Amino acid sequence: MTVKVGINGYGTVGKRVADAVNQQSDMEVVGVSKRSPTYEASLANELGYPFYAASKEHLDAFDEKGIRVAGMIEDLLAAADIIVDCTPKGAEYKPVYEKAGVKAMWQGGEKHTLTGLSFNSMANYDKAYGADYVRVVSCNTTGLLRTLYPIHEDIGFSRSMATMIRRSADPWDTKRGPINSINPVLDIPSHHGPDVQSVVPEINIQTTAVKVPTTIMHFHSVMVDLKVDVNTDHILDLWENTPRIKFFEASQGVDSTAKVMEWAKDRGNLRGDMNEIAVWKDGTQVKRGTLYYYQAIHQESDIVPENIDAIRAMMEMEEDRMKSIEKTNAAMGIK
Amino acid sequence: MTVKVGINGYGTVGKRVADAVNQQSDMEVVGVSKRSPTYEASLANELGYPFYAASKEHLDAFDEKGIRVAGMIEDLLAAADIIVDCTPKGAEYKPVYEKAGVKAMWQGGEKHTLTGLSFNSMANYDKAYGADYVRVVSCNTTGLLRTLYPIHEDIGFSRSMATMIRRSADPWDTKRGPINSINPVLDIPSHHGPDVQSVVPEINIQTTAVKVPTTIMHFHSVMVDLKVDVNTDHILDLWENTPRIKFFEASQGVDSTAKVMEWAKDRGNLRGDMNEIAVWKDGTQVKRGTLYYYQAIHQESDIVPENIDAIRAMMEMEEDRMKSIEKTNAAMGIK
Amino acid sequence: MTVKVGINGYGTVGKRVADAVNQQSDMEVVGVSKRSPTYEASLANELGYPFYAASKEHLDAFDEKGIRVAGMIEDLLAAADIIVDCTPKGAEYKPVYEKAGVKAMWQGGEKHTLTGLSFNSMANYDKAYGADYVRVVSCNTTGLLRTLYPIHEDIGFSRSMATMIRRSADPWDTKRGPINSINPVLDIPSHHGPDVQSVVPEINIQTTAVKVPTTIMHFHSVMVDLKVDVNTDHILDLWENTPRIKFFEASQGVDSTAKVMEWAKDRGNLRGDMNEIAVWKDGTQVKRGTLYYYQAIHQESDIVPENIDAIRAMMEMEEDRMKSIEKTNAAMGIK
Amino acid sequence: MTVKVGINGYGTVGKRVADAVNQQSDMEVVGVSKRSPTYEASLANELGYPFYAASKEHLDAFDEKGIRVAGMIEDLLAAADIIVDCTPKGAEYKPVYEKAGVKAMWQGGEKHTLTGLSFNSMANYDKAYGADYVRVVSCNTTGLLRTLYPIHEDIGFSRSMATMIRRSADPWDTKRGPINSINPVLDIPSHHGPDVQSVVPEINIQTTAVKVPTTIMHFHSVMVDLKVDVNTDHILDLWENTPRIKFFEASQGVDSTAKVMEWAKDRGNLRGDMNEIAVWKDGTQVKRGTLYYYQAIHQESDIVPENIDAIRAMMEMEEDRMKSIEKTNAAMGIK
Repeated sequence: MTVKVGINGYGTVGKRVADAVNQQSDMEVVGVSKRSPTYEASLANELGYPFYAASKEHLDAFDEKGIRVAGMIEDLLAAADIIVDCTPKGAEYKPVYEKAGVKAMWQGGEKHTLTGLSFNSMANYDKAYGADYVRVVSCNTTGLLRTLYPIHEDIGFSRSMATMIRRSADPWDTKRGPINSINPVLDIPSHHGPDVQSVVPEINIQTTAVKVPTTIMHFHSVMVDLKVDVNTDHILDLWENTPRIKFFEASQGVDSTAKVMEWAKDRGNLRGDMNEIAVWKDGTQVKRGTLYYYQAIHQESDIVPENIDAIRAMMEMEEDRMKSIEKTNAAMGIK
Repeated sequence: MTVKVGINGYGTVGKRVADAVNQQSDMEVVGVSKRSPTYEASLANELGYPFYAASKEHLDAFDEKGIRVAGMIEDLLAAADIIVDCTPKGAEYKPVYEKAGVKAMWQGGEKHTLTGLSFNSMANYDKAYGADYVRVVSCNTTGLLRTLYPIHEDIGFSRSMATMIRRSADPWDTKRGPINSINPVLDIPSHHGPDVQSVVPEINIQTTAVKVPTTIMHFHSVMVDLKVDVNTDHILDLWENTPRIKFFEASQGVDSTAKVMEWAKDRGNLRGDMNEIAVWKDGTQVKRGTLYYYQAIHQESDIVPENIDAIRAMMEMEEDRMKSIEKTNAAMGIK
Repeated sequence: MTVKVGINGYGTVGKRVADAVNQQSDMEVVGVSKRSPTYEASLANELGYPFYAASKEHLDAFDEKGIRVAGMIEDLLAAADIIVDCTPKGAEYKPVYEKAGVKAMWQGGEKHTLTGLSFNSMANYDKAYGADYVRVVSCNTTGLLRTLYPIHEDIGFSRSMATMIRRSADPWDTKRGPINSINPVLDIPSHHGPDVQSVVPEINIQTTAVKVPTTIMHFHSVMVDLKVDVNTDHILDLWENTPRIKFFEASQGVDSTAKVMEWAKDRGNLRGDMNEIAVWKDGTQVKRGTLYYYQAIHQESDIVPENIDAIRAMMEMEEDRMKSIEKTNAAMGIK
Repeated sequence: MTVKVGINGYGTVGKRVADAVNQQSDMEVVGVSKRSPTYEASLANELGYPFYAASKEHLDAFDEKGIRVAGMIEDLLAAADIIVDCTPKGAEYKPVYEKAGVKAMWQGGEKHTLTGLSFNSMANYDKAYGADYVRVVSCNTTGLLRTLYPIHEDIGFSRSMATMIRRSADPWDTKRGPINSINPVLDIPSHHGPDVQSVVPEINIQTTAVKVPTTIMHFHSVMVDLKVDVNTDHILDLWENTPRIKFFEASQGVDSTAKVMEWAKDRGNLRGDMNEIAVWKDGTQVKRGTLYYYQAIHQESDIVPENIDAIRAMMEMEEDRMKSIEKTNAAMGIK
């Protein structure tokens, strides 16, 4: 018996979640849904994912493009045990999911208050166990939690400060700029700090953010005031034993987000994705009790394995966070 | 019995050629060679390609990084039937290959005079049959030949004019600019025209080139004065039946080189590569005897299948160009 | 007695036209008008240009920001002999200008049919003499006319082919992309050819266009089939004697649009503008009757002197195109 | 009697220092020097700065390009009271300057140990009074000192943390990348912190740095733990009264480094330069004793007025830092 997963919103995140669900032995994709007849809809057909129309508006257009439609979104909700919402305005779907009586998960673009439960696999898997509605936090928040939470659990820290240097658009999104500018995010501090606290309220974190003209990977420069003055190797060992963190070294030629992406392609990752957080080993230092490190976040894919774990928790398929993480990772080829 | 292929230069092109050789049932990778102990060398180990050191200089460094070295470049030459040279200064290796008595192929960065035989699968496969030394033309020249040669063979054309809008660096190459500039190539006309003629001397072509701040895909804007005033559909049909040309349509959301690359990733192509030439169907027009079209070239991978065909021709493994092309394409998952 | 000029739309083009009018001894700025209280409105105050509000909607906001408002747009129309429209939707203002009985000029974003008269200083100054409504053609069309028209007048040409490699956004416009892509303009041929013909119908021209990730200068790669097979120097001499063309040489380090902009800054040009068309001397070649050349267009400022000449023609201030051009150039410090 | 200033290295910084010296009533440019015959050398001729050749190597080339050479670098040293070194390898010139018995200043690319005295106008003008050799700190260090030093002087702070998001190349420098990548500076912490301390050792500062694909302005995200818990307005008032800090507001449309540069052009600044540090008023916040702010640094020009003040101090022309700053600012049109 496998859990039946429906994906509403077959775009940048949705297509990745669908493939990841498809890779799990205890889950299956019962269908994906999309609004407009772009090439992604044809692709869903090609990959054998039943395709459901999100609205009647474009039914003719799907027909014209030769895209087979298995039914409407309501049919998908009826067929699924759980819905992964990857639409741009997911909050609007909440009443629809409630009415259909289906469990649902949203992505980090939605507010914490939508579900009251914001999720990260390592940090609070237990809280999502059996829950009906969960929000998987954003790519940047996931990235911060991946590296900060293990330190919080291990030796603790009194304060963390992160500057998020954000890519300004997805690689395919050619409408958005800037082309030659740095644009500060003027909400001070940025929303990333509170978002980390929506998962682990005890973490003390101050964040600021800027947008820069790149389409690949967000980047974080982080300082952490440690509670215990350990050396750099202590932190590296800790992360070495934490899932979904991958070390890179400039001494092996990986000195930039572009090289991380090249590595991910060379490794044969689907779509050249990078589900792990990239941490520079030779950019990590503890000096006088302060840990400095740099990490890069693949905005399109780091949250995908967390989505899988969240399904497992919500559907009560696995009680132990580490076992779910291992299962997800093995199926997705992580590490 | 499979043909034993050695790859000298395991970088951007070399790693792709190795994987493509590995996918063919009638060829095998007997080894790859590289100079410095970057992560690509570790990767060769991981993928099971015997790794040969290109010089003694870095032997200690390979050892330190834990990279297993099967021998020196001379050993690779002895083990191989044919060498695909993917080094930056391939001409310097010619005497070495000659001395070792091994057949050899070079990439388009080398001059035509190095081999006297410049290769494109559709245009002159026969000429390479049994040859000892062949040069596979560059990504841009290959792109021009893919779309121009079928017209030349079919109805003919009196003149072609192409402006090459070149990406300025490979995605991983973070040293090169420009960041915010257009840089003209001031050799007028550019070398691309003569390079097309090194394969098919009868083609009349005038080219100019500029470099622009993008890392993905070269782009060509082409005008062709047709000998017969056919309509647009005639040309589209011709290309539909030509291998390694792939149509895209802005009406399905593919309106830029970035979207072509997204499609290639979504399709599951290894490294997100695009071995086909991307032609915009809704950007192709015949008006008053002039054909206008736009095409995009994935600089890192369009020449990879041509390398495979060239091996087959040089090693006399297959007499018919179309049969080699089909075999290569099927093994690489093209079309 | 000076001609009273009002500028409606005090943005990228409007602020430059205002300064250029202000530099002329036979014209004066009677006011500028804008919709929203950005820093440009404050700047108009600082520079002493009477500021008129384009709508009542933002009157409070102007007040809050301390911007002095001299009146409404209607008051400006009453005070002016001629209006230079630099608004994004200029066609909508035509009835307003007609009602006010004021002469008006628009920019190249508007259609030819709005005025029936599209203007370039060298090509058709005479036609605008005394006219009530004129459209100054766009930056790219102006650039093509500056270099093609003298050849048309001198030895003639049978055909011209241009690929426009367009900057995708103004330097200040950080909303627009692409960041890492080449985006073809899929209307084939592009509108630039017909736009040249809206000024000089006899010119045979075929154009295509792409957008690239740069914010500085459009770029044209042009081929021209000459009617007389002159040598390269003939063309260079012709352009040397044509106003508003400026040669650059890679041998002096000016090998890119970025270097042209650096030169313009170093020269002390206001805003670092470049009113001339930049032509690469060492990128110009006549080969077998075909002229090849590269030119760069400063999108924000090449049309500014044409606006001044158009005012002089429409207001019947100067009969001779060359005398107006010289007057404009001298006042603006061109050449 | 004016002080005679020679500028060795007439490039990005040198040409700006020359113009700034030229604007002062108590200084004069006795000559500029450069190695190669680029257009900048011609420009020096045009602007009337006597041009001296930095080596005999290119004398013929200067002649060919028609550049008038007033003498060799040794002649310039003899004619000058003080030399501003703006060459890429300034340290190598120290013995030359010593031998010539001329005072000399270097830029921030050199090490502190070259002079033992690193300079910022507000922070340590007095120390440079009468000094023979001074180093003006880099653009980024100058930027940090401009905003941090006044707080240090006023209420003090216990700790400051800055992430420097650096533009990767000057606008004209089209060779350097990256085009689409974020490149971390892996020396942790970055050299900027110690460099601030080379001027004011008491300042506690931790810095990290990354390079991003933009050519305009460096950017700093800064957090400061204040010694006294003042409100945001206290800090804004303090900076309001500090020279060479300029506020911008997103609410007036200045929401990015690109818009700051647009403002500088519109204001009529020579070369569109921005000698002030740009601070976002609506990006400045004091929260629970921590000050957050964003600032942007025009890498090519913020250090130019500091160079002028350093001359005045070294030549004992003015004892009071504030009087020198006012004199420099007035002459350069700052504020």
